[in-house]
Amino acid sequence: MSEPARTALFRMPMALRWRDLDAFNHVNNSTFLTFLEEARIRWFESLQREWLNDTMMPLLAAVQLNYRAPIPYPADVEVSLFADRAGNTSVTIGHRIESPDGATLYADGHVVMVWIDPSTGRPIPLPDAVREMANAASAP
Amino acid sequence: MSEPARTALFRMPMALRWRDLDAFNHVNNSTFLTFLEEARIRWFESLQREWLNDTMMPLLAAVQLNYRAPIPYPADVEVSLFADRAGNTSVTIGHRIESPDGATLYADGHVVMVWIDPSTGRPIPLPDAVREMANAASAP
Amino acid sequence: MSEPARTALFRMPMALRWRDLDAFNHVNNSTFLTFLEEARIRWFESLQREWLNDTMMPLLAAVQLNYRAPIPYPADVEVSLFADRAGNTSVTIGHRIESPDGATLYADGHVVMVWIDPSTGRPIPLPDAVREMANAASAP
Amino acid sequence: MSEPARTALFRMPMALRWRDLDAFNHVNNSTFLTFLEEARIRWFESLQREWLNDTMMPLLAAVQLNYRAPIPYPADVEVSLFADRAGNTSVTIGHRIESPDGATLYADGHVVMVWIDPSTGRPIPLPDAVREMANAASAP
Repeated sequence: MSEPARTALFRMPMALRWRDLDAFNHVNNSTFLTFLEEARIRWFESLQREWLNDTMMPLLAAVQLNYRAPIPYPADVEVSLFADRAGNTSVTIGHRIESPDGATLYADGHVVMVWIDPSTGRPIPLPDAVREMANAASAP
Repeated sequence: MSEPARTALFRMPMALRWRDLDAFNHVNNSTFLTFLEEARIRWFESLQREWLNDTMMPLLAAVQLNYRAPIPYPADVEVSLFADRAGNTSVTIGHRIESPDGATLYADGHVVMVWIDPSTGRPIPLPDAVREMANAASAP
Repeated sequence: MSEPARTALFRMPMALRWRDLDAFNHVNNSTFLTFLEEARIRWFESLQREWLNDTMMPLLAAVQLNYRAPIPYPADVEVSLFADRAGNTSVTIGHRIESPDGATLYADGHVVMVWIDPSTGRPIPLPDAVREMANAASAP
Repeated sequence: MSEPARTALFRMPMALRWRDLDAFNHVNNSTFLTFLEEARIRWFESLQREWLNDTMMPLLAAVQLNYRAPIPYPADVEVSLFADRAGNTSVTIGHRIESPDGATLYADGHVVMVWIDPSTGRPIPLPDAVREMANAASAP
């Protein structure tokens, strides 16, 4: 395992679908990003504060992902989010996709997110809920 | 633009589909990886030599992608592949997703690919066709 | 509700993903088929008998689906399978996608499935497990 | 071939993607609906008149599709739309997915579409452009 124990911001089981497989019979590489996206959105929802409305919309700025092991179907899979860094206008969220017992790491990496004003397309400060949670979790 | 002019290994137009959009009304972040995958596979096919059979199968080891601008629908989009580095058992392929006139860069980044023996899951040397093309293109 | 009470062959909750939404902000029409497919495969798996191997592979022959109400995200959704008719070489499986309490019907319809021999592409008799279960459930 | 020659409302080549394949190594059944959807939307766009705005949004009411032959990858595929019936508030659009030379029929069937007012969710009359085109094409 490549990372020391950290406290996850959020953790959720991901229900695989057979359609997640590609012709190589394992979960397609693009679908890993859908798993990460789902976990992020469920996390935002769990904060029960504003993260998406007419004046704020999240946008992915970058992704880095290491594919460690193919995911078969069926399989029990869990996605975890970590606060890697939170600035004023961007947050870096670490990710792990692994078996629930932690024995198999399928993928790890991180994404950089920004928020924009949909009417202008310009970056805006992070939503308070996101910045506060990320700061709290990334504090030493 | 973040990269100097390089000769592309391969270049193809990508026909967008309305289903590529997500609820934010631009092409979903995971779909960018499907675009890159499609260009890689069409490139492999274009080599007209062995790249996939009972003893060799490509696998994505890592991806790094910068999302530079949202892709609307409809839009004319082109995907380019570059040879960033070719070793014995892995190849790093650079990617750009942009408008055909090069005026808009939607995304850039790279992937690391390995080939495995499907029967063992172990890495094997790159297919000759892939290594030779990548070496030729990345030579100074 | 358009159908009388019937005993379901199989019933499962479907975990929605944000990516299931399209640009109209409800679950895309094609994704309904992925939900039905997932439920069928989980049902086949639950039979714990042969349904897929080198000599037998299921194939969809036809689908008829009525979209009754848009599925928002998030939402609790359940998929049910019914045995509408089982012959020697094809089975008609009814479907309902609804809220767990049955108050909202999102979609209903049916699919016709056949099994083929992958080496010839020709239809073969239904797997015993599928035919027996379907016959038992569709018996008056 | 199951249908007599009819004049297509619209016809377009569909660029397959490797990701359209599922673990059975042919285009997944749900992806056929994405192909039909893409052809419909490109047709609507080609009319160059209003079909989608704050007061009108198309919705799929039903689909019936026969899967006639598996679609391999790569393959040249064409989607055709036919006007089966146009009423005041719904239109039935026939579909064929076939090889460009018409020698292979991959799928045929039809969808029923309605338009709604997004603010109320209620059906509204078809957009003029859609009704006129469909009526003209379905006239004897």
